[in-house]
Amino acid sequence: MAHPMTMKNGQPFDRASLESLMKRRLFYTPSFDIYGGVSGLYDYGPPGCALTTNIVDIWRKHFVLKENMLEVDCTILTPYEVLKTSGHVDKFADWMCKDPKTGEIFRADHLVEEVLESRLKGNKEARGQKAEEEKEDPKKKKKKVKSIAIVKLDDAVVQEYEEILAKIDNYNGEELGLLMKKYDIKNPATSGELLPPVSFNLMFQTSIGPSSNLPGYLRPETAQGQFLNFQKLLEFNQQSMPFASASIGKSFRNEISPRSGLLRVREFLMAEIEHFVDPEGGKKHPRFDEVKDVELELLNREVQLAGKTQVETTKIGKAVETSLVDNETLGYFLARIQLFLERIGVDKSKIRFRQHMANEMAHYATDCWDAELLTSYGWIECVGCADRSAYDLSVHMKKTGAPLVVREPRKVPLQIEEWQVDIEKKKFGPKFKKDGKTVEAAIEALSQELREKLSLDLEKEGKITIDVPGVGDGKVEVPNDLITIEKRTRVENVREYTPNVIEPSFGIGRIVYALCEHNYWTRAEDEARGVLSFPPTVAPTKVLIVPLSSHSDFKPFVRTLSDKLQDIGVSSRVDDSGASIGKRYSRNDELGTPLGITIDFQSVKDNTFTLRDRDTTRQVRASVDEICKAISNLVNGTEQWADVAARLPAFEGQEVD
Amino acid sequence: MAHPMTMKNGQPFDRASLESLMKRRLFYTPSFDIYGGVSGLYDYGPPGCALTTNIVDIWRKHFVLKENMLEVDCTILTPYEVLKTSGHVDKFADWMCKDPKTGEIFRADHLVEEVLESRLKGNKEARGQKAEEEKEDPKKKKKKVKSIAIVKLDDAVVQEYEEILAKIDNYNGEELGLLMKKYDIKNPATSGELLPPVSFNLMFQTSIGPSSNLPGYLRPETAQGQFLNFQKLLEFNQQSMPFASASIGKSFRNEISPRSGLLRVREFLMAEIEHFVDPEGGKKHPRFDEVKDVELELLNREVQLAGKTQVETTKIGKAVETSLVDNETLGYFLARIQLFLERIGVDKSKIRFRQHMANEMAHYATDCWDAELLTSYGWIECVGCADRSAYDLSVHMKKTGAPLVVREPRKVPLQIEEWQVDIEKKKFGPKFKKDGKTVEAAIEALSQELREKLSLDLEKEGKITIDVPGVGDGKVEVPNDLITIEKRTRVENVREYTPNVIEPSFGIGRIVYALCEHNYWTRAEDEARGVLSFPPTVAPTKVLIVPLSSHSDFKPFVRTLSDKLQDIGVSSRVDDSGASIGKRYSRNDELGTPLGITIDFQSVKDNTFTLRDRDTTRQVRASVDEICKAISNLVNGTEQWADVAARLPAFEGQEVD
Repeated sequence: MAHPMTMKNGQPFDRASLESLMKRRLFYTPSFDIYGGVSGLYDYGPPGCALTTNIVDIWRKHFVLKENMLEVDCTILTPYEVLKTSGHVDKFADWMCKDPKTGEIFRADHLVEEVLESRLKGNKEARGQKAEEEKEDPKKKKKKVKSIAIVKLDDAVVQEYEEILAKIDNYNGEELGLLMKKYDIKNPATSGELLPPVSFNLMFQTSIGPSSNLPGYLRPETAQGQFLNFQKLLEFNQQSMPFASASIGKSFRNEISPRSGLLRVREFLMAEIEHFVDPEGGKKHPRFDEVKDVELELLNREVQLAGKTQVETTKIGKAVETSLVDNETLGYFLARIQLFLERIGVDKSKIRFRQHMANEMAHYATDCWDAELLTSYGWIECVGCADRSAYDLSVHMKKTGAPLVVREPRKVPLQIEEWQVDIEKKKFGPKFKKDGKTVEAAIEALSQELREKLSLDLEKEGKITIDVPGVGDGKVEVPNDLITIEKRTRVENVREYTPNVIEPSFGIGRIVYALCEHNYWTRAEDEARGVLSFPPTVAPTKVLIVPLSSHSDFKPFVRTLSDKLQDIGVSSRVDDSGASIGKRYSRNDELGTPLGITIDFQSVKDNTFTLRDRDTTRQVRASVDEICKAISNLVNGTEQWADVAARLPAFEGQEVD
Repeated sequence: MAHPMTMKNGQPFDRASLESLMKRRLFYTPSFDIYGGVSGLYDYGPPGCALTTNIVDIWRKHFVLKENMLEVDCTILTPYEVLKTSGHVDKFADWMCKDPKTGEIFRADHLVEEVLESRLKGNKEARGQKAEEEKEDPKKKKKKVKSIAIVKLDDAVVQEYEEILAKIDNYNGEELGLLMKKYDIKNPATSGELLPPVSFNLMFQTSIGPSSNLPGYLRPETAQGQFLNFQKLLEFNQQSMPFASASIGKSFRNEISPRSGLLRVREFLMAEIEHFVDPEGGKKHPRFDEVKDVELELLNREVQLAGKTQVETTKIGKAVETSLVDNETLGYFLARIQLFLERIGVDKSKIRFRQHMANEMAHYATDCWDAELLTSYGWIECVGCADRSAYDLSVHMKKTGAPLVVREPRKVPLQIEEWQVDIEKKKFGPKFKKDGKTVEAAIEALSQELREKLSLDLEKEGKITIDVPGVGDGKVEVPNDLITIEKRTRVENVREYTPNVIEPSFGIGRIVYALCEHNYWTRAEDEARGVLSFPPTVAPTKVLIVPLSSHSDFKPFVRTLSDKLQDIGVSSRVDDSGASIGKRYSRNDELGTPLGITIDFQSVKDNTFTLRDRDTTRQVRASVDEICKAISNLVNGTEQWADVAARLPAFEGQEVD
């Protein structure tokens, strides 16, 4: 549903105009458009592709290089067996409802959400409160307005609806079915009755090999490949704990009915970290001190279960101290996620961390927080950060027998007092014959408590009697010449444990889209002139080179500037089209290019150029070396435009058209 | 089959020892290993992943940035309709033979190749010629030796076999079936009869959406997405031709029986360029002059068809001039491919360009050359470079009606003399009634020759008679009050054409593997000490930091050096394990790390460090600033080790263990 948003300049945000810009400038486009498109699939064009590459590059520096994570690239194709073990075959599903008459299929939770929100809106209108809503795609708006019935609701009903919406992610299929019955939720277009929700697995299926005998899936996350390689990664890391692996790659979800543009797609780029940590000792993180004062907006699960959504600004150090966030390592990553999002230009005031409610969280998870970004579609999960406990490594170890564990020498060997049993093997065979092994196993399996009790029996009665199902009448007597039971001390030098996993998981496409919403605004003097104010580090192109005209005198300067910028590693583009300077700069404002160089007749005379700042449209004039130095500083973040403008002589004129 | 190779140091190359190194150091590992693996699927571990990322990064600079290509990122999921139109549904297939008794499946061309090569080897042994063969994995060798029958062949048969092998890629299924019959080729393990070759489509199939009604595939190449977006890309490029799009991403082929490790896999990273060029004017390239003197080793199709494989060293300028290479644009890219491969460290003497034979080439292609790299598996196609003509854009345009064409104003408008037909529409309807449209269409379709002839009839007889199948008896008379035929001049101001496509297509995984083979050698003094001599730009890690011991005095220096290197953008790793300095350097020789810094007790005293060169194992000693400057120069390629060694004082000692 639409959420009213404001742009940097205080004007209301208009999604339709941003989307039109993004498609016109080929940030993205529906895939297979000339074939009619496929819902939930989008291609990235040159600026979208460069934006994504730059964000991934910063991600790699911020996480992988900074902390020496072990980056891996595992396959997308995944055999059935692996995803059966991980639980995805059985549980990676959404609830869908079919309209038996029209054949239409709805995602149950989205349908409930949509219908209740629409009723709340109708209620507001009925009460004469103007529903806050930004301007929308005219086509969509028409459709939506039609389906909103202007009906007043009881105060109690309004409260019920709001509470349901606050915990919409907390319902299972059965509960959604009950809600649909209770609130009479039907096909919004036809008012047709819907069948009860059934589970639909979201993985794309295929088969591997020529004889079609190996069923497989496209991975729904990059995590499993990292878990399966745990042992080799630990070995690569020279057995040193804690450590993290990381992976950047495509994942796939066969969404029931994709909507919300780039936010809900069937194929998407993920960047995931699996941080492996010792479960003992409180999951401390060695660098937690560096981030403990980072402030986050936290929305905890109790608040949500009470049907509310208010956040609390909390230092992460405090949140861990009070156990609101389960442990240091989880807290460390929440803070690092916040810093990453700020670094790439996400609006700080539009970030919150929402804790998962109990039913929403996987049953094995200890704690889970989503970094949500506020967009015109509402708060959108863009990064998940879960403590997955030892679940994944344990299930794969159990299934395959591979030792997905850490073995470390104990500094102080562990002394264990225990009742040990010795068997006189030579006599054991002859006495019990073919049952020997069974009896032996039954003895080995005796608990410490039983062993203690039996040691007394042995002393008193010279024999023990134990239960051995399947041998004789199920009771077996063992005399004391065949067995000894004694309390002894065992020394354990090696500790073996299954690490826990903290998993920060980034949906890059969603972050890219939210970033565009946060950085989009229109010039006050002209609503049609859109600007994307990306920070220079993430901007698709850093510099636009604009010769005043196609005059041949300008050509050598274009080449010199391009080469110089390439030498200092700055991406530039030349626009020598016939359009006016103003039009050419407008086009590049829309592409988010932060800087522009104009080559004019004065350049030909004295080899000076003007440098233009996208956001202020102010210009300075200087020599080629000074211009390049300023660009390098701006792109690397060592200078801001204000510094450059204060340093170099201003230039007025030219950009009128 | 195995191909004897020599390492840089002149010693014979041993594939088994390189593969063991690459798996031990986690360059790659079989995917899902703990589940028994899936053939044809491999994961890249940290060094393999970093190596790939660095190569992709250089690729992007060498091609995309250098020539302002439009990079796009299209989806892997592709609907049936698109791949039906492109021809992949019908033709993207290999020939497979089944053994009806055992159920085993063979790829027909590979089986013929393997059996004939094995017979040739048996013949050599029978003639007492020692078969040249490098040392192999002992397990494999045993198996292979077993299957080689030592049988002498007639000279004529040997020649036949060699000719077949030289053109093995030129046979279709029927021809392969005939070869198998003629040369009695059966299941090598059981000698069981095989069924004739049948076609097996290599695309992985899936279905998109919840109702399973949209069949789709995983793309077999990244090209189609680029073609479908042609119109938008041309618009983005402000209608300017020629231009290229580019794409880096995963593609999939369901290989019949993957073998040869990383060289034949089911999921792989591709980097593809689609360069769109005007088919008129000889497909000139504006920058061809820059590369015309680049020398390539060319193996042309006539030589191959004659059953030979000798190459000719040719300047690309000459090759295009003599039409051996079809046009400048194709030639330009062949040279740029050569330069790219050299830049990343591929051995220049192990590159050749092989022209496709007629049957091997897609029917629409004008010319096609593969850059092949010599490995222990023989010459392997690593880059394809095809002139795909206007095929792809034409078929998609025909299917969808989207105008995948270039429209450009003519500098000199075209004057076309032609016979034009005018119809008196008002009278036409009443006379022909329901057949009006059909008759009109038949008239519009008349050729220029017929129009000229009919204009005479009209003048002489006052009417014309034309064939209109399906109307009356198929002959229709049109009187001269309904029709005029006149010769007139038409002026065409806009030229419309479908661009041709030159497609350089890179298999990144194959290049990575060949690069490893080309850069692998073992130290003369110790065969077990492997080294991977990657150039610093592609090396996974640039610098290893080694404190002499875990003494706490060294710790602050480790931190300072790491931070300094991070500041100058150089990736480093610390090895503070307890192992000896020598062992730690050996490990990093295997990882291909070009430089190492040792922190010893003298460092603590005077803040100097030693810098070690991987390839020579020589060391210099200098201050931290001088060391960092040298590293920066070496990594950026502005200095070679010899320069640094000449400049800074040598250091002897330490590396004994």
